[in-house]
Amino acid sequence: MRYELYYWTGIQGRGEFVRLALEDAGASYVDVARQKGDGAIAAFLDGEHKGALPFAPPFLKAGRLVIAQTANILQYLGPGLGLVPDGESGRIYAHQLELTISDIVAEVHDSHHPVAGRLYYADQRAEAKRRAADLRETRLPEFLGYFENVLQRGGGRHPLREHSYVDLSLFQLMAGLDYAFPRAMRRLGRDLPRLRALGKRVAERPRIAAYLDSPRRQAFNENGIFRHYPELDDPL
Amino acid sequence: MRYELYYWTGIQGRGEFVRLALEDAGASYVDVARQKGDGAIAAFLDGEHKGALPFAPPFLKAGRLVIAQTANILQYLGPGLGLVPDGESGRIYAHQLELTISDIVAEVHDSHHPVAGRLYYADQRAEAKRRAADLRETRLPEFLGYFENVLQRGGGRHPLREHSYVDLSLFQLMAGLDYAFPRAMRRLGRDLPRLRALGKRVAERPRIAAYLDSPRRQAFNENGIFRHYPELDDPL
Repeated sequence: MRYELYYWTGIQGRGEFVRLALEDAGASYVDVARQKGDGAIAAFLDGEHKGALPFAPPFLKAGRLVIAQTANILQYLGPGLGLVPDGESGRIYAHQLELTISDIVAEVHDSHHPVAGRLYYADQRAEAKRRAADLRETRLPEFLGYFENVLQRGGGRHPLREHSYVDLSLFQLMAGLDYAFPRAMRRLGRDLPRLRALGKRVAERPRIAAYLDSPRRQAFNENGIFRHYPELDDPL
Repeated sequence: MRYELYYWTGIQGRGEFVRLALEDAGASYVDVARQKGDGAIAAFLDGEHKGALPFAPPFLKAGRLVIAQTANILQYLGPGLGLVPDGESGRIYAHQLELTISDIVAEVHDSHHPVAGRLYYADQRAEAKRRAADLRETRLPEFLGYFENVLQRGGGRHPLREHSYVDLSLFQLMAGLDYAFPRAMRRLGRDLPRLRALGKRVAERPRIAAYLDSPRRQAFNENGIFRHYPELDDPL
């Protein structure tokens, strides 16, 4: 199966959670918009194909299936790529954890766009300052503390006692937060030893290390979800 | 199977999407916190049980399984309750649509809490006014227009050509929006004939009609996700 991933060019964004799974498994895939431009996405959003109608990227074409929503894509890919446990309870839990990662990712996005995604950051800086402070002081400790507990509960190394797409997504979450909020993450990281160690182990997996070192891995930037605006980080 | 639903008392909230599925199917369930109080939820969040650790309610106990995240619960319940199509592509699409409903529900919540969920609305009224305007002018037309297209694509009556939990969730979304933004929804509703008709049909399903008429259905209120603050609706 040669998967076709559709996601906007120029940013890691939500597509990156899918890319990491495909790369870690050594799967065959095309990153369609990077080859054909973002216009290739529009035709799907306009519904010119048969099957499921996506609301937004990322979406994946797998044979005749069209699958949208990041966590839904990972849930679909997991068994075929060997990135989720075999049993029902493990798969349900993996998906729950992924959905919880999606929730905090959306909150991170809204920390720089608390009023409207279609407005510039410059048009909502005052609101962003308040929201980012709450993210750093309340929401990140809640979510990251939760994932640290999940790791502890899973034996320390993996949320699900074995490697899964959730490990990869937690790596991406921590990498993005380190980029966006370096000062806050130095402060919070002291209480997150298992998450820190997980991130390091994922980055050292041979296929992930090769991917991170390749031109396929784009750099974080201020058009994506994880943006480094120093005024939104912990005060100096 | 007697399901145990865990959700905060006093509001419909995200738990309501699960309740509607259980009620529509005539399933046997206990709404645990309404019997034992919200304290019954805390023990699960503290991890005093075996199995999956929820981040937040709603979660469902089904035998030994603990399942959290609204859309994940509905995905689990769907086949057993006869509330999702049989084939893989239909189930994946149903879940995608449910996750997209979760996204707009989160945006509705943030329209009155754009800075922080833990702060009072009164402490973020200025920000809420800006965000709610964007919700009414941009996001609701995008999301509801999308679901209207999905209905058209599904033959007009159902997103998935047959009744499913997605129909129930779209009913709840429309009911909540009608409560929170009556003026905006009168304006937007003119372009949403299929969504309007779907909502009406769902409300007339015998078990749903009986549920809506029962004390089990709580009223919308200003502690929930869908809140009626007239100053956040279309200007008079």
